[in-house]
Amino acid sequence: MSFEHFFPVWDQLNMTQKSRIQDSLIERQIKKGTMIHNGSIDCTGLLLIKHGQLRAYILSDEGREITLYRLFDRDMCLFSASCIMRSIQFDVAIEAEKDTDLWIIPPEVYKTIMEESAAVANYTNELMASRFSDVMWLMEQIMWKSFDKRLAAFLLEESTLEGNNTLKLTHEIIANHLGTAREVVTRMLRYFQSEGMVKLTRGTVEITDQEKLRQII
Amino acid sequence: MSFEHFFPVWDQLNMTQKSRIQDSLIERQIKKGTMIHNGSIDCTGLLLIKHGQLRAYILSDEGREITLYRLFDRDMCLFSASCIMRSIQFDVAIEAEKDTDLWIIPPEVYKTIMEESAAVANYTNELMASRFSDVMWLMEQIMWKSFDKRLAAFLLEESTLEGNNTLKLTHEIIANHLGTAREVVTRMLRYFQSEGMVKLTRGTVEITDQEKLRQII
Repeated sequence: MSFEHFFPVWDQLNMTQKSRIQDSLIERQIKKGTMIHNGSIDCTGLLLIKHGQLRAYILSDEGREITLYRLFDRDMCLFSASCIMRSIQFDVAIEAEKDTDLWIIPPEVYKTIMEESAAVANYTNELMASRFSDVMWLMEQIMWKSFDKRLAAFLLEESTLEGNNTLKLTHEIIANHLGTAREVVTRMLRYFQSEGMVKLTRGTVEITDQEKLRQII
Repeated sequence: MSFEHFFPVWDQLNMTQKSRIQDSLIERQIKKGTMIHNGSIDCTGLLLIKHGQLRAYILSDEGREITLYRLFDRDMCLFSASCIMRSIQFDVAIEAEKDTDLWIIPPEVYKTIMEESAAVANYTNELMASRFSDVMWLMEQIMWKSFDKRLAAFLLEESTLEGNNTLKLTHEIIANHLGTAREVVTRMLRYFQSEGMVKLTRGTVEITDQEKLRQII
């Protein structure tokens, strides 16, 4: 499967635009754990995922993290090319959560095409609206949901993504996803364990009662 | 001053597009305190502010609120027309915080023009990126900043917007802006008062030491 099959508005580009993209496209294999993009430092380009999983997150000055959203096969990552839009005034970090094959479209190439093509501009709009919706969902979770619900939802989502009830996750990593302190995670996981919903060992969390965990949410 | 002077991409529209907007445009005077748009219930249209002040916020099921951002003269409100984009999967409420004169562009008119005009689509992109930046700023505040800093910043911003050190704000209203409980606001305001930064009377907060308040942030 080639780029044309992954880029949804390909058929709406003219010949010049198509060849401009094809001539500048970079294909990359990224190892799990690699930091692909780090905030305002660089303008990496738009990333179109062939296969894999990326995580977008923000970092505080003190090194705390919170996961904003994840990107999967066929998703396009816009904020790794935030220089294409003047009004994007925030920094997002992107890392590969699994081995990932992706294409990079250079930012200046995409910007030029977006400026002349209503189809590409509207596609970009829909992309941004999707990520905006993810962040608004997160905002509502943080504002109105108690931490036990957020942690239960996170563990269930991880188990779906990994296809496994035994999750290789330290309390520190979970804290970084959920934007809280490690101690808070440890305390809640111990409570979950005492209720028979999870089993904790060093570096893993095993979900032992999916149904009970689901009832918390 | 007429609509053409307020709509930044007017000159990039063709004659048909211009007349489609002019024929469908609605001008409105909105009284302070009016709820203009309420989440998913309606698709009001795009609001272009001639003069005034709007507040965009989200509401929890339990009726808690948090202010996302404010809009001022010449700002365009996109999320009162969320039906124009399929990927906008969240609801925002909009109210007039001051008497506001605005134009309403019907959503279907704007959508049609956006689909054919790269200029309008890119303008819409920049609008969304601006609001996204506002929300990301807020997210960082909520995640990494302590409540004293957020409250101090809010009081100073209000005083700038009102051009007055005496703010007509109940603790309940402040809590709704900042997405917290009234008791939390009361406690922190009393602490600010004990430090000589504000003076509290029924229904008002008077800033008595701007400089000291600024140092908290």
